[in-house]
Amino acid sequence: MDRELEALKKTFGAQVRDLRQAQGYSQESFAEVCELHRTYIGAIERGERNVSLENIFKIAKALGLKISDLF
Amino acid sequence: MDRELEALKKTFGAQVRDLRQAQGYSQESFAEVCELHRTYIGAIERGERNVSLENIFKIAKALGLKISDLF
Repeated sequence: MDRELEALKKTFGAQVRDLRQAQGYSQESFAEVCELHRTYIGAIERGERNVSLENIFKIAKALGLKISDLF
Repeated sequence: MDRELEALKKTFGAQVRDLRQAQGYSQESFAEVCELHRTYIGAIERGERNVSLENIFKIAKALGLKISDLF
């Protein structure tokens, strides 16, 4: 389970990074649109955070996507 | 944003409740499979919790579904 959870966070983070970059956002400009901190976005993208539903929603909204598109 | 977040938590909770019931789980038996507490499952289903990615994963896994199926 632990290894699966680590893999999930890594995969989610990589997906956020890919989608952010595809839309031409820097971490800093993306963080601003999300109303989250730049260092927090970096940690999510590295798979280091157990991100909450609210922040998953903010990220999806900033990307103009549905939450299900992030998974 | 706040109202959207509240609506999201309510919708997510209702979806978890529907899927749990469709699979014939009580809150108690479902909590055991999820390795979460019964009262926590109840709070999620009522839309009262800002559930984390790890717990979303545990719920999806217990239901035999992908995370995207919960949204």
